[in-house]
Amino acid sequence: MTYINRQILLDTYTDALPRTGNFVESVTHIEACEQGKLLIRNHYLSVDPAQKGWMSRAANYASASLGEPMRALAVGEIIESGLDDFLEGEYVTGWFGWQEYAHVGRDAVQRGLGAVERPIRYALGVYGLNGLTAYIVLEDILQPKAGETLLVSTAAGGVGSIAGQLAREKGARVIGLTGSDDKVALCTGDYGYHAAVNYRAPDWREQLAAACPDGIHKYFDMTGGWISDEVVALMNQSAVHAQVGTAAVASWDPAPLAPRRERVLLMKEITQRGFVIFNHPHRYPEALGYLHERVSNGQLKLREDIREGLSAAPGALVDLYAGLNQGKLLIRLVGDSD
Amino acid sequence: MTYINRQILLDTYTDALPRTGNFVESVTHIEACEQGKLLIRNHYLSVDPAQKGWMSRAANYASASLGEPMRALAVGEIIESGLDDFLEGEYVTGWFGWQEYAHVGRDAVQRGLGAVERPIRYALGVYGLNGLTAYIVLEDILQPKAGETLLVSTAAGGVGSIAGQLAREKGARVIGLTGSDDKVALCTGDYGYHAAVNYRAPDWREQLAAACPDGIHKYFDMTGGWISDEVVALMNQSAVHAQVGTAAVASWDPAPLAPRRERVLLMKEITQRGFVIFNHPHRYPEALGYLHERVSNGQLKLREDIREGLSAAPGALVDLYAGLNQGKLLIRLVGDSD
Repeated sequence: MTYINRQILLDTYTDALPRTGNFVESVTHIEACEQGKLLIRNHYLSVDPAQKGWMSRAANYASASLGEPMRALAVGEIIESGLDDFLEGEYVTGWFGWQEYAHVGRDAVQRGLGAVERPIRYALGVYGLNGLTAYIVLEDILQPKAGETLLVSTAAGGVGSIAGQLAREKGARVIGLTGSDDKVALCTGDYGYHAAVNYRAPDWREQLAAACPDGIHKYFDMTGGWISDEVVALMNQSAVHAQVGTAAVASWDPAPLAPRRERVLLMKEITQRGFVIFNHPHRYPEALGYLHERVSNGQLKLREDIREGLSAAPGALVDLYAGLNQGKLLIRLVGDSD
Repeated sequence: MTYINRQILLDTYTDALPRTGNFVESVTHIEACEQGKLLIRNHYLSVDPAQKGWMSRAANYASASLGEPMRALAVGEIIESGLDDFLEGEYVTGWFGWQEYAHVGRDAVQRGLGAVERPIRYALGVYGLNGLTAYIVLEDILQPKAGETLLVSTAAGGVGSIAGQLAREKGARVIGLTGSDDKVALCTGDYGYHAAVNYRAPDWREQLAAACPDGIHKYFDMTGGWISDEVVALMNQSAVHAQVGTAAVASWDPAPLAPRRERVLLMKEITQRGFVIFNHPHRYPEALGYLHERVSNGQLKLREDIREGLSAAPGALVDLYAGLNQGKLLIRLVGDSD
């Protein structure tokens, strides 16, 4: 059987914000599944903040290749298997790219989905990078406690919305930074933040200081850049700063200039630590168990922004960096999968 | 009895490198020791890299006051005691300032010297900030192991020369950065560094890369600034960066600009942590025991640069930042004390 495979290819690298013009649509054909590979029908494609970095020529922890389907996580069904330990009909998540079918080797698979893991699209959200990052950064780096104030930047985003809820459960006072008044309302409503501040407001520094009367003990930072330059002034002695993303910095080629931070880091004995989720797969099972319990009992509030059809992917990525999404951004390719 | 007390007063703040003109000599008289205070005859005054920060108007963890004796550690003998638990004839170290006599309260005293702690001037060096900082940063932050490469910046300085020797004992490959060819020789000779590089050499980056074929796992950083901007390129995945000083940055008012580091910190999952020795007094007893053992058996090589007389203090501080000292800088006030 021949499969017609529509794809979104990366057409040009960029060190600035992605544009739809960086991508081009294409069609290939897959004749059959080769031995040692899997043929997967993608049901959902992920749209993630990390993809900007993968589109950069600059050194990164992962890269997309020109003329190849855009590097992306996806979840889909195995429709033909050339590997003994994978069965047709199983759902898997992994590096399947922005395309309708993926013909990939074992190394592209992150993991198979357990039978209880439904809906399958959660493998790209709360059971994917978002939930795993939120849990592991809180458990292994920030360890928030009662009496502490924890700040989350991009507080209403895929990771932040989960991190805020988990940190509150640990007893911390949880404050969010986000980019619109609608998202401020979402933070203090659905996601249970004690307070949230719109960093586009002219007086956001004063608002943030007022929301953190005891300073900031822990900083779950997904923006870096000019936002974090201001946050550091509110950080307490022995504060811990997890650097999980750098969304507030548009380009790293070359690295933009900023006020040196080593003096304040020294004086306050701040610990700043970088985090890349892909280095922590040994922590996934514990994280998935913890998250599954809180999803099953309805404790975790999740929001999704699902766009229809492969062609929607580039525009969804542009919307993501413009802050126009309303939760975890997904591209649905198969209508009735869950 | 009246004591004539010569003093070096801080006359002007500076956010640049200290000059002798920032200080002025003065004389006061002390009539007798008040109840609740100690009258101490200073034997040695300390000259330390941290003093520059104390001369700044900018926020700092400690400050000197205009018109007061320059803030400094010293070691001296109690000649009159107005405190029940301190006896005349005991040696003490603490915040006694650049002056011949200190008339101070209990809070100025860091600690009394044990009988085995001789020569007493070691209380300002290997048993003072230098040795304590070296030991505690290595034990509590960097934890070097066999197979790892540890870099020390200001490798031949008071802290660095001890840190290098202690790290080598832990089995690490120890590399030094220092500011002259003479000090490079001192590092690889007396202090046992596996290699050392003069950061004033035009090709120092290449030399450093060649000295660190397995990259840098641990960074004992007392310079920050342009030196550390280059070092970060050689740091490995999961490297640990202890920010112990910022000697390569001349002024912090305002903080100078530098290339943003949050992306490389994130990608390499680097941990960067500030350290101020004064926050760790609970660690001193263990550190002193460890250091005393290695001083007693001759294992630790120590170098001192002792200048004679109170008036030598400002010039010694200027020399310190010019890299003209030949070991721990001390001002001797009493000739035959040990």
